[in-house]
Amino acid sequence: MVNTLIKNRLISDLENIAGKENVLSSYDELYMYSTDSTNITNPKEVADAIVFAVDTNQVSKIMMYANKHEIPVTARCAGTNVCGACLPKSGGIILDFVKMNKIIEINENNLTATVEPGVVIEELQRKVEERNLFYPPDPSNLKVSMIGGSIGLSSGGPHTFKYGSTKDYVIGLEVVLADGTIMNTGSFCSKDVTGYNLTQLFIGSEGTLGIITKAILRLIPKPESKRVMLAYFDTLQDTSKAVNDIISNLITPSAIDLLDKNTLKTIESFYPSGLLTDKIAALLIEIDGFKSNLDEQYQKITDICKNNNSSFIQSAKTKEEEERIWISRRSSFGATAKLAPNVVTEDVVVPRENIVALVNGIWEICDKYHLKTCIMGHIGDGNIHPNIALDLRNPVELNNFLNAKKELFELALSLNGRLSGEHGIGCEKSEFIDKALDPLALEYMKKIKSTFDPKNILNPKKIFN
Amino acid sequence: MVNTLIKNRLISDLENIAGKENVLSSYDELYMYSTDSTNITNPKEVADAIVFAVDTNQVSKIMMYANKHEIPVTARCAGTNVCGACLPKSGGIILDFVKMNKIIEINENNLTATVEPGVVIEELQRKVEERNLFYPPDPSNLKVSMIGGSIGLSSGGPHTFKYGSTKDYVIGLEVVLADGTIMNTGSFCSKDVTGYNLTQLFIGSEGTLGIITKAILRLIPKPESKRVMLAYFDTLQDTSKAVNDIISNLITPSAIDLLDKNTLKTIESFYPSGLLTDKIAALLIEIDGFKSNLDEQYQKITDICKNNNSSFIQSAKTKEEEERIWISRRSSFGATAKLAPNVVTEDVVVPRENIVALVNGIWEICDKYHLKTCIMGHIGDGNIHPNIALDLRNPVELNNFLNAKKELFELALSLNGRLSGEHGIGCEKSEFIDKALDPLALEYMKKIKSTFDPKNILNPKKIFN
Repeated sequence: MVNTLIKNRLISDLENIAGKENVLSSYDELYMYSTDSTNITNPKEVADAIVFAVDTNQVSKIMMYANKHEIPVTARCAGTNVCGACLPKSGGIILDFVKMNKIIEINENNLTATVEPGVVIEELQRKVEERNLFYPPDPSNLKVSMIGGSIGLSSGGPHTFKYGSTKDYVIGLEVVLADGTIMNTGSFCSKDVTGYNLTQLFIGSEGTLGIITKAILRLIPKPESKRVMLAYFDTLQDTSKAVNDIISNLITPSAIDLLDKNTLKTIESFYPSGLLTDKIAALLIEIDGFKSNLDEQYQKITDICKNNNSSFIQSAKTKEEEERIWISRRSSFGATAKLAPNVVTEDVVVPRENIVALVNGIWEICDKYHLKTCIMGHIGDGNIHPNIALDLRNPVELNNFLNAKKELFELALSLNGRLSGEHGIGCEKSEFIDKALDPLALEYMKKIKSTFDPKNILNPKKIFN
Repeated sequence: MVNTLIKNRLISDLENIAGKENVLSSYDELYMYSTDSTNITNPKEVADAIVFAVDTNQVSKIMMYANKHEIPVTARCAGTNVCGACLPKSGGIILDFVKMNKIIEINENNLTATVEPGVVIEELQRKVEERNLFYPPDPSNLKVSMIGGSIGLSSGGPHTFKYGSTKDYVIGLEVVLADGTIMNTGSFCSKDVTGYNLTQLFIGSEGTLGIITKAILRLIPKPESKRVMLAYFDTLQDTSKAVNDIISNLITPSAIDLLDKNTLKTIESFYPSGLLTDKIAALLIEIDGFKSNLDEQYQKITDICKNNNSSFIQSAKTKEEEERIWISRRSSFGATAKLAPNVVTEDVVVPRENIVALVNGIWEICDKYHLKTCIMGHIGDGNIHPNIALDLRNPVELNNFLNAKKELFELALSLNGRLSGEHGIGCEKSEFIDKALDPLALEYMKKIKSTFDPKNILNPKKIFN
C-alpha cells in the first residue's frame, strides 16, 4: 500500500513527527505488532511502522502526514480483540495507544471519568470503585484490555444484561479525524440532545472513522453487594425457561451466563473447581444491589430454577467462593485452548426467544464438522460464544471450521440474529456483512465512511470490504 | 418553497398517492397543523398540505414525490414538543403519524416492543406493565405524546436519572429516507455491534435525516414497588449537597427532581396540595425496586436529607399520596401558565457540579429582565427547566425574554453545559447551535445531513440553519 519512495522515508519522517523513542521499525517488531488476539497462525500483512501515540497533537500530526501520503493507519490498544480489528490488512502505520494511559479525572459529583484510550479497564474500574462508583462494561480480558479498544468495538461482558455495554457509558469523545483535524463530540452531560449523536457513530466503528484520543465516560453508583450462584439443568429448554421466568418475576440479574455440557467438562478437566460434569447446562447467575435484599432475590431465583427442574444449585457463601465461580467461568476460553493448538471464539447474538434453537443448531453444526466446541455466553442477552478448539494448520480441520463458521452465521441470521453482539466485525466477519445488513443501511455506512475518511486510510478492509 | 405549478397540483397529487381521506388542505386546517406546543402567538409559516401517514409504503411514495419536486416534509406526531421541531419553517407537507398507532408486538421473552410512531407513550407503558415489563422514558406529556416524536427528540423525563432516556431504549428502526427508499437499522438484539450504529444517528435528529415508520424498543423488568417523598431545604447548597450525598451512599433514586421556591408557591396557589411555600427548594425523590428494600433506602435518604439541613420531609404513605405528589410536580408547567398569557419552558443541562451556579444564574437573569420564572428540573442529571411566564404580545416583555434566553444559553455553555437535555433544538435554539458545538462536529453533522437528504427537504431549518 505504501509506495517505495514514501516507504524509504517513512521511518525517518515518523521519527521526526513522533519522536525517535516512539517509533518501531525492525521487522521482528513490525511482525509482532501485526497480530492481535485473533487466532491466525501467521500475519499475512505486516505493518510498515509502529508509532506510539503520546498526545492528541502528535496523533493529529501523524494523521496529517498519513493522509497526505495515503498511508493506512490502524489504531491499537491492547490488541485483545478476536475479530482481526487491529490487523494491518493494508500495511501502513500501527498507532499504538499504550502510552496514552492517563485517567485524567474522576468526578464524583458529575458521575464522569475522563480517560485516555490506553487506560486498562480493570484499573479504571478499581479506581472508580474506590470512590463508590461503578463502570460496568466488563469484557472477559479486562485485566489487560483498554478503554480505546473497548470503545472501538463497543465491548460488553457478563454485566451487559443489567447494565448495558460500552456504548451506554461513553458520553463524549475527542477524535482525530483522517485528515488530522481534532473533533469533540458529546459533552460532560449524560443527557444531551444538542445536535446529532456523533459519539455513538464512533463507538463500535473499529477505528475506521477516526482515532479516539480521549473519552468522557458515565459512571453510576456502585451496587452495595452481590451474590453468585450456579444452577444446573438437564435440558436446554429448562435452562432457557428458567431465564425467562427469572426475568418475568421482576428480577434483573447483574449477570446470567450459560455454560454448556462441554464447557463444564472442559473447565473441570483442566481447572478443577467442583463443577458438575454430568449436566447439560449451567446458569451462572449474579445478583447485586442492597445487601438486605439479596436473600429475597436469591430465594426467588432458587425457587424458579427448582420449578424448572434444576437438578443442583451451588451457591457462593463467601467472597472467595464467588471469586472461584467467576474464575472458573472465565477460564472457559483457556480450558478450551488446552484441547487443541488453536481456539476460535465466535460471538453470535439472537433474540432470546431463539436461544434454544441457536445452541442446538451450533451443536449440530459442530458435530457435523467434527469440531470440539464449548459453548458459553450471555444467555440473558441472547449472546452466545462457541469456543472451537482445533488445529488451524490441519487443512481438513481448517476447511471444516470455515464451513462451520459460514453455517453458524447463516443460522444466527435465520433466527433474526446478528454476526456480533460484543466482539465486532473486523476482517474476520466482514465477508458476511452483506448478508447481515439491509443493503441500504450498508450503502449509507459506506457513505459515512467516505465522508469521514475519503482516502480510506483508517483501518481499511474492516467491517466491510 | 413550493413553486406555483406544483402547488396547484399538490393536493390532487397527494390525494392520489395517499388517499383523499388522508389529506387536509383547507386554510384553517393548514394553519392549525402549522403550530406545535412551542409558545408562539401565530405561526409565521403555514404548511401547503397535511397528509396522514397510514403505512410505510405510502410514506415511501410521498417521499419519492416530495423529493422529486423538492417539497419540504415535516414529520409530526402529537406536536407536543416545545422547540418548534414540527413547525413547517419552509412550508410543504406535514406528515402526520397519528393514524400509524399500532403496537405491533410486545415480546416478553425478547424484552422488546415493536411499535409504529403514533403509539402514545402512556399507552405503551400501560400495555407493557400489564406484562410485568417497563418502558422507562417518561416525558411530562406522556399522556398524549407519541413514540415517534420522542425518538425524534430523544425525550427524557424524571426517570432518566436511573434509567436513561429514549436513546437508551431504541434498538432498531425502519426509516423512510428523503428519496423514498426504506432502510432498516439495528435489530431485535439489544447487544449488536454489526456495523455502524445508524439507529442512534436518527434518534434525536428531529426528522431531518429520515422519517421513522417503525421502532424496536428495548424493555426491562418492571420494578416491583416504589416510594415517593418530598424533602424541603432552605438553601440551594444544601439541596445540591443532599443529592450528591444520596448518590455517594450508593442510592440511585428512580427520580430526583428539583422544585424551586417560585415553583412551590405557584403550584400551591393554583393547585393546592399541601406543598410548603416558605422554602427555597424541594427535592421530589422517588425510589423503586423490591418492596422489602424500600424502607432501608427511604431511611437512608431521610437521614441524608436531615444531615443536609432539610427542614421538612413529606412522605407518601399510600399510592394516592404518591400520585398526589407526582400530579403536583407535573402541574408546575400548568400552574406557571396561569401567571401570564404565555409560558415558555427552557431545557438547559450542565454537569451536576455546576447546578447551584446554574440555578442562581437563572434567578439572576430572570430578575434582571423582570421575568416571572419557576425553576424545576431533573437535578440528578443537571437538567433544569425554567418555566417563564410572560405576555409575548408585549414587545418589552418579548424583548426581555429574548435577551434572557440568550444569556441563559451563554450561562449554561460557560458552565460546560448544553442547550438541551431532552427537549431538542428545533428552530427555537438553532441560532445558538454554532456556539454550543465544536465547529468541526457541526461541519460533519451538516455533511451527514447532506448525505441523507441532499435536497434538504426533511424538516429544513431545524437544529442548524
